[in-house]
Amino acid sequence: MAKEITSRSENYSQWYNDIVVKAGLADYSAVRGCMVIKPYGYAIWEKMRDQLDRMFKETGHQNAYFPLFIPKSFFSREAAHVEGFAKECAVVTHYRLKNDPNGKGIIVDEDAKLEEELIVRPTSETIIWNTYKTWIQSYRDLPILINQWANVVRWEMRTRLFLRTAEFLWQEGHTAHATMDEAVEEAERMINVYASFAREWMAMPVLVGRKSESERFAGAVDTYTIEALMQDGKALQAGTSHFLGQNFAKAFDVKFLNKEGQQEYVWATSWGVSTRLMGALVMTHSDDNGLVLPPKLAPTQVVFVPIYKNDEELSTITQVVEKLRAQLHSKGVTTYYDNRDNYKPGFKFAEHEMRGVPVRVAIGPKDIEKGTAEVARRDTLQKQFVAQEHLTDTIVALLDDIQQNLYKRALEFRESSTVKVDSYDEFKKVIAEKGGFVMAHWDGTPETEALIKEETKATIRCIPLDMPEEDGKCIVTGKPSKRRAIFAQAY
Amino acid sequence: MAKEITSRSENYSQWYNDIVVKAGLADYSAVRGCMVIKPYGYAIWEKMRDQLDRMFKETGHQNAYFPLFIPKSFFSREAAHVEGFAKECAVVTHYRLKNDPNGKGIIVDEDAKLEEELIVRPTSETIIWNTYKTWIQSYRDLPILINQWANVVRWEMRTRLFLRTAEFLWQEGHTAHATMDEAVEEAERMINVYASFAREWMAMPVLVGRKSESERFAGAVDTYTIEALMQDGKALQAGTSHFLGQNFAKAFDVKFLNKEGQQEYVWATSWGVSTRLMGALVMTHSDDNGLVLPPKLAPTQVVFVPIYKNDEELSTITQVVEKLRAQLHSKGVTTYYDNRDNYKPGFKFAEHEMRGVPVRVAIGPKDIEKGTAEVARRDTLQKQFVAQEHLTDTIVALLDDIQQNLYKRALEFRESSTVKVDSYDEFKKVIAEKGGFVMAHWDGTPETEALIKEETKATIRCIPLDMPEEDGKCIVTGKPSKRRAIFAQAY
Repeated sequence: MAKEITSRSENYSQWYNDIVVKAGLADYSAVRGCMVIKPYGYAIWEKMRDQLDRMFKETGHQNAYFPLFIPKSFFSREAAHVEGFAKECAVVTHYRLKNDPNGKGIIVDEDAKLEEELIVRPTSETIIWNTYKTWIQSYRDLPILINQWANVVRWEMRTRLFLRTAEFLWQEGHTAHATMDEAVEEAERMINVYASFAREWMAMPVLVGRKSESERFAGAVDTYTIEALMQDGKALQAGTSHFLGQNFAKAFDVKFLNKEGQQEYVWATSWGVSTRLMGALVMTHSDDNGLVLPPKLAPTQVVFVPIYKNDEELSTITQVVEKLRAQLHSKGVTTYYDNRDNYKPGFKFAEHEMRGVPVRVAIGPKDIEKGTAEVARRDTLQKQFVAQEHLTDTIVALLDDIQQNLYKRALEFRESSTVKVDSYDEFKKVIAEKGGFVMAHWDGTPETEALIKEETKATIRCIPLDMPEEDGKCIVTGKPSKRRAIFAQAY
Repeated sequence: MAKEITSRSENYSQWYNDIVVKAGLADYSAVRGCMVIKPYGYAIWEKMRDQLDRMFKETGHQNAYFPLFIPKSFFSREAAHVEGFAKECAVVTHYRLKNDPNGKGIIVDEDAKLEEELIVRPTSETIIWNTYKTWIQSYRDLPILINQWANVVRWEMRTRLFLRTAEFLWQEGHTAHATMDEAVEEAERMINVYASFAREWMAMPVLVGRKSESERFAGAVDTYTIEALMQDGKALQAGTSHFLGQNFAKAFDVKFLNKEGQQEYVWATSWGVSTRLMGALVMTHSDDNGLVLPPKLAPTQVVFVPIYKNDEELSTITQVVEKLRAQLHSKGVTTYYDNRDNYKPGFKFAEHEMRGVPVRVAIGPKDIEKGTAEVARRDTLQKQFVAQEHLTDTIVALLDDIQQNLYKRALEFRESSTVKVDSYDEFKKVIAEKGGFVMAHWDGTPETEALIKEETKATIRCIPLDMPEEDGKCIVTGKPSKRRAIFAQAY
């Protein structure tokens, strides 16, 4: 089974696609650019979603739901937003079909043309701020801390499963505040929630930083981002949080009466992560044998495979396995007993390896005699024999160890793929030959940024929040710079 | 605050709308027929969704996600389905907007016209069966037991919050089976899951039955339904489960190799409930003071309101309240301490009554002296003084009692609103004057059903699965009938 996967060294993007499809995470659909998220992929997404949802609620947010459709005119209200979002999107123009009078199936009923076209939401700032206008009168109505889990559509020309699809699932937080300080604090709080989630749950190291002006969200005053590094040396933007200033409040005329009795525009943030995280998860940990999952996000953490020649052996093994499973369940470990009788153990091993199950336990007649089990960990592929009486404790510790090890391994990779450069020649050489994160001085202008992008395909991923001040010179123009930025080619 | 609600006797549908809006459940949006589900309404929906999701998983189902868009031609494949579903729906014809050359905002880019129009899913049988074709080869791939939580769009001309909106949230199960018996069993299993959920969680009695041919889902061989009775004597279809036979398998050419080595079409079911359940919940239990919620679905089960004149009193009360809340939390009870200092107790009482919080506890200085608290239940509005030391046990029992009482009350209402009639004159009189469920003999023909509908606006809600055989004569044609059907006017 593992043989079916293209290796990373041979063709990295084919490797990625093979894993997504063959581990049963997702597949393309009959609709251009839209994917089907298959049960196994969706089960992982559910675990991510549930944990994020808990973290949002712990930080005081509530969920709500706003319409899928947005009137076209709403996009024209915020000048920068229209440029960024109103272009490549799905446009609903009619609301009825009818039978073709020539008997050829069904056709659009031209009598049912909408007066104003509706856009399938690419993001919901406009419709939400249009709603907030009716919810907010005074400072007593603030803050509003709302999140929405939803599908959105952006008509992408080149799509890749999870990483860039026309329709994707996401959450979008939209908050309203009485003061600028509060809104900035909220935007920073949420990028840090994303960073904690990435590190602790996805076992994925991320840089937390600010976007440069030209990489900002359309309509934002400031965009915070978490940036991860994939195994091919390309960066992946994994989540963003925006301080929107009063831009949307002004566009939708949302004012409040402040404590001093004056009318003031409301301050805003928005923040989101999407099913793109699934792509990041796959690319951060997986290997040439298939998917590798951090235990905290694995739908099944431990799979048991019986090795037997006849029903009697199977029955003895099953008794032992069920006892062990019950012990593991009481510790909160999820397990699966793969006793399908139409597949051989070798096939099962390969399949669970492909699907990234963190721990595999094989038990055969000899193990029954000796009171042992063979325990294999997916991250390192190492195996060990463990006494059955210690199996539960061993596995609980092992799952924790795998979670830590995956993070450590990814962090080491990122650290060894991050270099400081002080000349444009060196910059070009690193980007072309090695990839990874490049820390370089930049004069702060969009022109220089654009030139670098054109010549190297590298963009400024972020200026990390914890990047120390350091006097230097822009690698392109030689103009003074106070601080390095992080450059990389990106997904 | 309660004064703002129209009474049921004055105007039932205005009463409903007042509750939905004023209890903060939902509101209309800027997009025709689309609603905004507000945080409080969404929190109730989340509780319903989470419990249904657990019940689906316990019965072996997995979640997945399929595209929002369906190619227009897919609807023409299944003859009955196209008639039922492909008409009033949102049609995407273009994928790009551009700046108006005359400088007036943005316009649809006519160069970006889709070759084939896409329909925003009104239901997903077609796109899912088109996918299943690639997943199913042999009996080993069956059954497929998949559910999807999604938004769908049906372009309704007359909309009402939750009950009938252009966009709504729902779940749709889509299963594939090797045999007819298995598929029928699945369709029946799921209607019974819905019935249990309605009774045990929503405290809403439902009839479980089959639809007549003309009320069947477009493309189904058999449609099962749960039907509830609202306080105005109208029926509400609260969930349906369909045995689809091999109709969609034939339309999308989905065959499997059976155990005998022969190619056979796959058998199918689909089943769904939607945010319409929110409307059913509101109309089943609420009264002229506002929303009434069954404790199992209430986001906050107990609200504490302090009665105080100064900070010292408040501080003493707060200490007692926090101790009581901790005790309740340890029993799994959700609470809220309404210590907002800019609202008076009377205002808070009315607000929580409006929002249907099942139990309210008020504590003032006298209660502190005596070690008591005033406990009010929302369903009957009765109050009692309870010793603080017994408060937790009392409330745990009270929540259970409220849950039972709401079901009992609704069941009594339904029973007193269900009558047997044996003549068409009596039928017309009951439907016109009293409403409710009417059990009558019917000759089994769509013609008679259509006549009754035209003359009385009553439709056959279902033929209950447990309806006993009984020889009788059709109330309209006098032709023989084996069994009564349930008629009612309906939402």
